[in-house]
Amino acid sequence: MEARPQPTTPGWRLRAYSIIFESDTPAGRAFDIILLWAILLSVLAVMLESVQRINAVYGPILRAVEWVFTVIFLIEYVARLVVVRRPLTYALSLLGIVDFLSVVPTLISLALAGSQYLLVIRTLRLLRVFRIFKLGQFVGEGEFIVRALKASRFKIMVFLTAVLTLVIIIGTLMYVVEGGQNGFTSIPQSIYWAIVTLTTVGYGDISPVTVLGRTLASILMILGYAIIAVPTGIVSAQMAAPSGTSPTYKQVICHVCQATDHKPEAEYCWRCGEKL
Amino acid sequence: MEARPQPTTPGWRLRAYSIIFESDTPAGRAFDIILLWAILLSVLAVMLESVQRINAVYGPILRAVEWVFTVIFLIEYVARLVVVRRPLTYALSLLGIVDFLSVVPTLISLALAGSQYLLVIRTLRLLRVFRIFKLGQFVGEGEFIVRALKASRFKIMVFLTAVLTLVIIIGTLMYVVEGGQNGFTSIPQSIYWAIVTLTTVGYGDISPVTVLGRTLASILMILGYAIIAVPTGIVSAQMAAPSGTSPTYKQVICHVCQATDHKPEAEYCWRCGEKL
Amino acid sequence: MEARPQPTTPGWRLRAYSIIFESDTPAGRAFDIILLWAILLSVLAVMLESVQRINAVYGPILRAVEWVFTVIFLIEYVARLVVVRRPLTYALSLLGIVDFLSVVPTLISLALAGSQYLLVIRTLRLLRVFRIFKLGQFVGEGEFIVRALKASRFKIMVFLTAVLTLVIIIGTLMYVVEGGQNGFTSIPQSIYWAIVTLTTVGYGDISPVTVLGRTLASILMILGYAIIAVPTGIVSAQMAAPSGTSPTYKQVICHVCQATDHKPEAEYCWRCGEKL
Amino acid sequence: MEARPQPTTPGWRLRAYSIIFESDTPAGRAFDIILLWAILLSVLAVMLESVQRINAVYGPILRAVEWVFTVIFLIEYVARLVVVRRPLTYALSLLGIVDFLSVVPTLISLALAGSQYLLVIRTLRLLRVFRIFKLGQFVGEGEFIVRALKASRFKIMVFLTAVLTLVIIIGTLMYVVEGGQNGFTSIPQSIYWAIVTLTTVGYGDISPVTVLGRTLASILMILGYAIIAVPTGIVSAQMAAPSGTSPTYKQVICHVCQATDHKPEAEYCWRCGEKL
Repeated sequence: MEARPQPTTPGWRLRAYSIIFESDTPAGRAFDIILLWAILLSVLAVMLESVQRINAVYGPILRAVEWVFTVIFLIEYVARLVVVRRPLTYALSLLGIVDFLSVVPTLISLALAGSQYLLVIRTLRLLRVFRIFKLGQFVGEGEFIVRALKASRFKIMVFLTAVLTLVIIIGTLMYVVEGGQNGFTSIPQSIYWAIVTLTTVGYGDISPVTVLGRTLASILMILGYAIIAVPTGIVSAQMAAPSGTSPTYKQVICHVCQATDHKPEAEYCWRCGEKL
Repeated sequence: MEARPQPTTPGWRLRAYSIIFESDTPAGRAFDIILLWAILLSVLAVMLESVQRINAVYGPILRAVEWVFTVIFLIEYVARLVVVRRPLTYALSLLGIVDFLSVVPTLISLALAGSQYLLVIRTLRLLRVFRIFKLGQFVGEGEFIVRALKASRFKIMVFLTAVLTLVIIIGTLMYVVEGGQNGFTSIPQSIYWAIVTLTTVGYGDISPVTVLGRTLASILMILGYAIIAVPTGIVSAQMAAPSGTSPTYKQVICHVCQATDHKPEAEYCWRCGEKL
Repeated sequence: MEARPQPTTPGWRLRAYSIIFESDTPAGRAFDIILLWAILLSVLAVMLESVQRINAVYGPILRAVEWVFTVIFLIEYVARLVVVRRPLTYALSLLGIVDFLSVVPTLISLALAGSQYLLVIRTLRLLRVFRIFKLGQFVGEGEFIVRALKASRFKIMVFLTAVLTLVIIIGTLMYVVEGGQNGFTSIPQSIYWAIVTLTTVGYGDISPVTVLGRTLASILMILGYAIIAVPTGIVSAQMAAPSGTSPTYKQVICHVCQATDHKPEAEYCWRCGEKL
Repeated sequence: MEARPQPTTPGWRLRAYSIIFESDTPAGRAFDIILLWAILLSVLAVMLESVQRINAVYGPILRAVEWVFTVIFLIEYVARLVVVRRPLTYALSLLGIVDFLSVVPTLISLALAGSQYLLVIRTLRLLRVFRIFKLGQFVGEGEFIVRALKASRFKIMVFLTAVLTLVIIIGTLMYVVEGGQNGFTSIPQSIYWAIVTLTTVGYGDISPVTVLGRTLASILMILGYAIIAVPTGIVSAQMAAPSGTSPTYKQVICHVCQATDHKPEAEYCWRCGEKL
């Protein structure tokens, strides 16, 4: 790829760069795949450590493994800083921060003990997995998906707003209907239930009992069942669209009755007949 | 926007209008965003008030907050009435009514106590959230979604009718099969279960036990799993369609055997050979 | 509509026909809507009758209502037979049978008592609801959906076969893995669980406990979550397709290695190089 | 079909071949359909045998049935080997192996007893059902679906990677948030819960209790509810695409800030302004 034609850069750095940052050379691909496995194994170690039975037996080994990987990733991180032309730009990019955070926690864990807090840090370490995407994107498909989602991000935001509104209102209604009982002990609780229901997850830890409540729930379920068509439709249409661009509409509101959804060529408000 | 070129209207009202009702000017956008936050906070206050632990401690503060917001929204409502050229048209428009209802309840809550009833009123106040849409629509995407749904509303209605029929019949069958036991105590109950199942929510508060019941349930689940494709397909096709128009068919029924689904160019009934 | 230009038919029958069977005349539409309400009410009566608390009080009234509606539908059925030119063809058409079955049960219920059996008959009466479709189809959209589903029925069948196979195999595996415990008491039971899981219904009445079982379940869930894309894609593509026709492929199998999926223009098997 | 014009092959083998391997002749179709039923019945026998109540009574009969079918399939397998021109190629093809595995287990079951182990083998026997596809593919639609899935396999892989990452991170977070209680006893457990939730299965065997946990769960649910749009969109777009080819993009990464998603015609990095 004609990505860096700087005569200034020495050859070894270009080579190192293409190995560490790219994966269209055999060496580069090998590097990425090894890294991928290292990430997965280190994450696996963290997971297993959380299982008490396993931790009781292999605890020390697992912690040792963590340290080995931490060192490996530390070296890798330094290498990236050396190879890239503008280390700061890289260090402040998302990937740079992720790379950094995937090393720090273990180091910190030396200073302060306190398992509970340590656990929180461990979760960050899982962010390493995100680097898998760099492989995925080279296939170019990941990028395709991301582009489609980006292109329809406004539609999706509007959709989510609508869903949240629906969930808040029905949640509150249910709190009133079920009279604060059967698990509907507060509005937030009821909203949680509404989300569980609308998304068709349906744990069953909270479920309506009264007739009115079940009727309301049924409506919510059918809504959730039908509404799913909206995000699906958005993304499908986006991906089927030849160009990546999505249709947007200049929007006119009647300054009298606030009516929207006028035809582009409309001269007068369709509701109150006012001149637009 | 060239939405109202009335030389008659005084400048200040036009300016106030563009701030309060529109959001394509910096001032207008700021106004809408502040309003949005006010709505969210006031809704949050209502929610928290419903949580007993919180209400016990911060009850008075929360009620105070509610009052502050009520006053703010009252002023806002009056301002809208003043600014708009035709107050009545606005007051009777959906947004006008929502604006009104978002103020009234707190006022009423002075006259009559009775928490239970109060709660019902509170839910109405949540309708404020709907105003968020006014922001969303400016992006023009909300409008796009609404148009797509409008265009396919008949298809969706037909789909929902089919789903309801299916749910009623299978619900009744389950009531018979499970012999009014295992939670299937009545046909409405069984229909509630059928909805919970078809929409793939699956609380598990009611679930079949008999072999025949589980077989029937399995069929219903697979149906629900496959049927979801219909609304999705409808909306996807609608959104992918270049023009917003959806295909509709003039429908001919054979006046002898009631057969439908004839080809547009059909001369004779495909079932009984009768001339159409 | 130019549906029956038989000079032979007397005018009154044509008029009656257009009222009873069609709904593009005001009278016809009114007839259908009234009929629709009658059906809904009669179904409602059956449902309420199944609720013990209600039945205890209003039982007699509900049974009376049922009888009134039965008589009404009986008259309607006879009217249809009289008006249609070929009564037999109508009587043997799906709608004719449904109309018939929606009357008979109540009559039979006189002869033989035995609530349990009666209930089974009642369910048939619900089939009346299907007549709603006749209204729906006039919008022409119902027909559109049905056509899309018909066009992709083979694809859907193949999909369902794949799903059933998957469910049977994973169900059996789970039975082995969970060692016939935790509700996985037999292969059919486990298959029932697999369906509940794959369709993302997830009652929770049966759920895996062993580590291997939960791993297998996770795979099944993600499969079910991704597989839903197939029917959806099929129907979406079908509905988006300009013509109602779906692409089908003449299929060649290599008679040596049984390889399929050859390009239409392929001369040799892509796997074993054999002449096709 | 003009699939093998070898004058060398004797007529009887061609005829036998077209009966056993193809289904476009009446005889061939009959053979396949009979085989299909045989497979289903034999699978049914295995299933019923696992039900204790049935096994107690009909155990011997069922085992006899299994033996009959095993012999039938053994004969069929030998016939296939004889008829095909290159037996080895067939024997090593997927279908060949499946055919083989569907016979062996019962034979082995003679040598070594031990029900537990036997059961594992039985599951393999279910693979026979896969042969149903051979019928399905002749319709050509199965092939269409498979092709669409193949074409979008990279997109689906990227999607699954994203889902797994999400599930691992949120699962770990939940383990931290719920403090290893309420069923969230370890990170793997919590990941299992995350999968159950993201896929909207929602057993309810594990469900969050803390406020923070339920908030996190709600986010995960809404994500899972919206994310489903991605695989659906991918497959829909793929199936709607006139040619079977899917768009892929040559991918450029800024060698300074690692920014991706550059326009194809981009000359400079959109984030750090570096020349690409």
